[in-house]
Parts: sequence; structure tokens; C-alpha cells
Amino acid sequence: MTTTHDRPGPTTRARVREVTPGGARDRRDDLATEEPLEIRVQAGAGPAAPRRTVAITMRTPGADFELAAGFLYAEGVARPGDIAAIGYCTDEDVPPEARYNTVTVRLEASALPELPQLDRHFLTSSACGVCGTASIDALRARRLPPLPPPGGEPIAPEVLYSLPERLRAAQSVFGKTGGLHAAALFDRTGSLVATREDVGRHNALDKLAGWALLGGRLPLAGHVLLVSGRTSYEIVQKALVAGAPVVCGVSAPSSLAVGLAAEFGMTLIGFLRGERFNIYAGHERVAV
Amino acid sequence: MTTTHDRPGPTTRARVREVTPGGARDRRDDLATEEPLEIRVQAGAGPAAPRRTVAITMRTPGADFELAAGFLYAEGVARPGDIAAIGYCTDEDVPPEARYNTVTVRLEASALPELPQLDRHFLTSSACGVCGTASIDALRARRLPPLPPPGGEPIAPEVLYSLPERLRAAQSVFGKTGGLHAAALFDRTGSLVATREDVGRHNALDKLAGWALLGGRLPLAGHVLLVSGRTSYEIVQKALVAGAPVVCGVSAPSSLAVGLAAEFGMTLIGFLRGERFNIYAGHERVAV
Repeated sequence: MTTTHDRPGPTTRARVREVTPGGARDRRDDLATEEPLEIRVQAGAGPAAPRRTVAITMRTPGADFELAAGFLYAEGVARPGDIAAIGYCTDEDVPPEARYNTVTVRLEASALPELPQLDRHFLTSSACGVCGTASIDALRARRLPPLPPPGGEPIAPEVLYSLPERLRAAQSVFGKTGGLHAAALFDRTGSLVATREDVGRHNALDKLAGWALLGGRLPLAGHVLLVSGRTSYEIVQKALVAGAPVVCGVSAPSSLAVGLAAEFGMTLIGFLRGERFNIYAGHERVAV
Repeated sequence: MTTTHDRPGPTTRARVREVTPGGARDRRDDLATEEPLEIRVQAGAGPAAPRRTVAITMRTPGADFELAAGFLYAEGVARPGDIAAIGYCTDEDVPPEARYNTVTVRLEASALPELPQLDRHFLTSSACGVCGTASIDALRARRLPPLPPPGGEPIAPEVLYSLPERLRAAQSVFGKTGGLHAAALFDRTGSLVATREDVGRHNALDKLAGWALLGGRLPLAGHVLLVSGRTSYEIVQKALVAGAPVVCGVSAPSSLAVGLAAEFGMTLIGFLRGERFNIYAGHERVAV
């Protein structure tokens, strides 16, 4: 396999502001790359061979052919011996940044198998192929109300340090299972306003946003959102749509989560654990 | 809101075998419930009102109306003021166990909005509604080759204790980002055979299964699979399709993951951390 400048790697360099009680320092950091992958199935060879997109999923580049094969196998679309070839899309009409985000699995069969409805929901502009930039463009096209610009009193690091423990205390009922993700909303003094839990990280945030929607509490300006686990593109997208200007995760953000936050002026904080955190975007809203 | 016996709660009681160097003991445990939720959108009122299923997602029961509203809001389908009512499906033709797994969001509009392709991929028998049992039935209908029955030398707990540390050592390159999930394959002596990583838990396992598929190494009999994070229905399903008889997670399994493992004779281990773990199904393959 060849490597080109266009091809996304598994990690992405970023600048991060690390905050501890000793102060703040800027340093370089490596983020897990997150980019969309379009998986296509083609029956037989030649330009007229029937083909179809069966899934678009966010993933970390690397082992893309294995990902496509494993996904189709798990869904019952491909068995051992069914696959004739796997390749990246190198069509001239696909821009370079999208070429390594499209994998075509060529099956031995001359007709497409019956394909279940596999598409993970994802907005994409098929005109320019799938890539992180196109994902951000698609979101911009929705013309969401902008987040409130930084201003007024910035949030003290001590307030942020306290949030995970406050969430854990509120989780006590379900927390006993150890199997639930949580999304929590705090006011700017660190008081817990609401929390929702689910086996799915995205669902926990959907529940919290739905609670706000049904209660007439949107947008979430003036609040701080905390999610358990990693912060992905989809989490930042949901927070952005709900109008949350400050989003914290207890673990790492992905490259695309950071790109999206920076593009829309959101403050994105990661590794919020004990008395430390990293600011990945929008540090103006934090008093450091 | 009323509660009935048919309605799934946020946690599910289970029996678990806890293993430590001091021995094994059986106890009761609470699992996070995982059940499918079908989200329907309906335009206006009355039996002739147009309606459509926009998503089926695995979730933990509770705050289902908020989940439906928040999901539709995030996808741009519903804005504040668009929603007239939200209710569970109480149709006579839907069996009781599925009624609380279907939520209909009634919009004020008299026509359905343009709905993006939102379905998360998921096999379901529409004949009997969505529920965990139907999910397992749908998988059974695929007539997968059965897992090898327990037999031969059971796996020593000491081998299992060692797996997370071996995975961490192998993760050193990507592990620096702290943002990647991993799936790893070990032989029965605890030697690492292969590992794959991704921002998405499911993708890491798809990559590993795809590696095995393309290398002619399926099924994964005689091996132990380890996944980072929680163990959900989808993880166990993918492991089952790949023929993995022993699946370990470093965190908790969901109720449906345990149900699926028990149904298909898989050994499912959770909370594999330090010198301890819990066996949720198939304890015959472990020497305790």
C-alpha cells in the first residue's frame, strides 16, 4: 500500500492548552483521527457492474479494507470466498481528500445481494465525496443559530474540576450497573441542572437535549455540558444543534470533534479528571 | 406515567459469577437494560395520518419521549413548537413486550417533513414489533454455524487476568491519544494474535473480524476476544458471527448482550480489571 499526502493517518496533530492548579501551558497533542468511510459493494468487474453504497460510518483511518470486509461479514452480506477484491475509490471526479474515505468491495457474484438498510445516519454531500470537511460543510448548510460569542465572566477552572464528581454523585442509582453513559447539564456555577443516562453515549445526549426541547429550555446558552467517555463528531454535532457553548468530556476528543468545535466557536474540553483538563478549542470562555 | 410488568426498566437483574484469586462466588447483579426503540414520526392526527419509522436504535429504557424528541431535533426533523404529542405504541396488534419500544412523535404539520435516511442498521422482524427477544430471533434466523461447545481444557483465570495489560502494551503507538477503542484476539494461552483500534468500538471489532476473514482465519474458535469499554448487543452479535466462543470486556455488559451470549452458548466476561472478572454466561469454559 502506498501513502500519499492526501491520505488521512490514524492520528492528527493538534495544539492543546493543558490546565492544572499550577497554571496553563500550551503544547502539541495527538488526537485519534475521525473521518467518514463510505463502504460500497460492487457485483463483478467492469464499469457497468452494479454497485451500491451500503454504509457510511465514522472511523479512524487504517485497516479500512478489513473494516469494510468485517462490517459486510457481520451483516451477512459477504462470506469467506465471496470477496474478489477491495480497493479505494480513485475516480478522477472524487477529490483527493475523499478518495481514501471510500472503499469498494467487489464481490464474485454478478448481481448485488439483497442488502439490508444499513446506512448509519449521516449527512453527506455526495457531490464531493465523504470527508471531514464535507461533514462540517453539511452542518453549516443547516444554518443553525450561532453559539453566543465568548464574553462576560469566564468559567473558573475550579468549577470545571468539580463537574465529574457531581455527575457521579447524581448517577448513584444507575451507576451501580457500571454500564451507563451519561450526559449532564450544569449552570455556570457548577450546579447540576439535569442528567440523562443510557447504554449509548449518543442516546444520553439526545435524552438531555430532548428534555430541554420539551421543557422550552433550548438553546443551552449559559450552561456547561459534560459527557462521559470520548467526544466524537456526532456528540459535538448534537451539542452544537442544542446551542451548548461549552462541552466537556472526561476522555479524549477525536480530530473531527475538535475541528467542528473550532469551526463553530464552541469551547471543547477533554480529559476532565481530577484537577486537570485540556482545552482543545475556544479557550476564551475559561479563566486561565 | 404508569408502570406495567411489560414495560422494561432501566436495570435488569442477573446472576453473575465473580472470580478473584480468592475463588469464585455467585451473586446477583444489576445490568443496564438494552432494548431497541423504534422512533416513528406522524404528521397530524387521525388513523389516516401519514407516518413513518425514522430510526431504530438500541437504548436504555427511560426518558424515551425525550430521546425521540432530542434525536429528531438533532437531525433537524423537529424544532421547538413542531411537536404536538409523543406517545408509546399501544396498538392491539403489537405484542405487549414491544409496545414500550415504539414511540410515535406527532408533528403539528399535516405532511411528513423530508426525512433523511436515518435508520441505524438493525435487523428486526416487523411482524412482531421491536424488542430484545425479536432481535435475538432475527439473529437465530440467520442460521449461523454454532459456537464450539465447551470442552477440553478450560481457561485459567490467570490467563484472563493478564489480557488487558497485554492489550495496553500492544496499544502503545495509538494509546498515546487516549481516544481509541480496541478489539484484540488472543490464543488460549494468552498470547496476543492481533489487535485493531478505532474511535468506534464496533469498528475496532469489524476491523479485527475483517482481518480474520481476509486471512482465512474464521471462525475464531480456540481464541479469546477482548474489547475495550462496554459490551453491547451489537458487539456480542459481531463476535458471534465471527465464531468467537469467549468474549471479554473491561467494563459492563448490557442486559441484551448477556441474553444473546446465553442464548447462543457464548462465554461472556465483564469487568476484567486487575485480578478479577465477572462471568455473565457460559462459565463452563473458565477453570473456576
